[in-house]
Amino acid sequence: MAHINLGNDLPGIRGPMAFRPETARPLNELAEILLRSNNSLPPGERELIGAYVSYLNDCFFCQQVHGAIAAHYLQCGLSFIDDIKADFQSTSIPVKLKALLAIAGSVKKGGKFVTKEQIDQARNFGATDREIHDTVLIAASFCMFNRYVDGLATWAPADKEIYVQRAKMRAEEGYLNLDLHK
Amino acid sequence: MAHINLGNDLPGIRGPMAFRPETARPLNELAEILLRSNNSLPPGERELIGAYVSYLNDCFFCQQVHGAIAAHYLQCGLSFIDDIKADFQSTSIPVKLKALLAIAGSVKKGGKFVTKEQIDQARNFGATDREIHDTVLIAASFCMFNRYVDGLATWAPADKEIYVQRAKMRAEEGYLNLDLHK
Repeated sequence: MAHINLGNDLPGIRGPMAFRPETARPLNELAEILLRSNNSLPPGERELIGAYVSYLNDCFFCQQVHGAIAAHYLQCGLSFIDDIKADFQSTSIPVKLKALLAIAGSVKKGGKFVTKEQIDQARNFGATDREIHDTVLIAASFCMFNRYVDGLATWAPADKEIYVQRAKMRAEEGYLNLDLHK
Repeated sequence: MAHINLGNDLPGIRGPMAFRPETARPLNELAEILLRSNNSLPPGERELIGAYVSYLNDCFFCQQVHGAIAAHYLQCGLSFIDDIKADFQSTSIPVKLKALLAIAGSVKKGGKFVTKEQIDQARNFGATDREIHDTVLIAASFCMFNRYVDGLATWAPADKEIYVQRAKMRAEEGYLNLDLHK
């Protein structure tokens, strides 16, 4: 049961977003711009960064939602997403994405954990300043979203298949004009 | 020097916000709603929650900016803000605010660190569900802002007096329509 009376039984972040639509609006706008708007980083890679940070923050709801959306975009199974979360360096993902995930992992610990060497490596593998910026802000924003979801003790469906079923719809409809009661 | 070429020499969060105005807009809207819009929690207390979390995250820029704005609203000196950051329980602030700062401190560590006992205590001291919600989201959002500022290695003026001088203007003008070059 959530720490506060949300007045609804929506899962995860959708509960407090319906409780407080004033703050839900900029939160969803931020997610839309960072994860879906025009960008040289593919949406699947951006969702993966969010899922990875959510995994590091042990946020079940966010890592299932965004892991399933990443799998949808990347056309892979959830087991590959799990492999990336557990040890991305040993997977077959592109080296630039590995370098960006390393930066995201440092951001999870705290901003000052990001090193010049990590930035240099990302740049050597072709990452632009804009891509590095967005990686840092995606990782930072999931440090917020994860804390929002778990800090209020929201509930989440345990069945991972539910997230897979919803991923296609979310990928198509995006985060704006989210029908919080759907 | 910042990790990426921001194309400007603005301090703190203003540098990456000017570099990427698309994401700056929802970030500033979120700050405006959480910190300044109509709320039963006074703006000074909300700014204090942000300053306290920024202190815990060791983000110099954010704790100086929001500590100075909190001091402006609360009509106290910076030394009282420093006392609160170091050990709020031993200060003369209201017990409800102490309970909310305790929740914010747990959110800093991670969402799951917030306990039912902390929520019960805040409620016993008169905190509403909406105030508890906003405390959690303010604390979570500063976990994002702090990581954004330090994850890109932005610079910050060392002279704390500069933040005091700007606090009154920011308190009056707010976070919307922020002239990023001012």
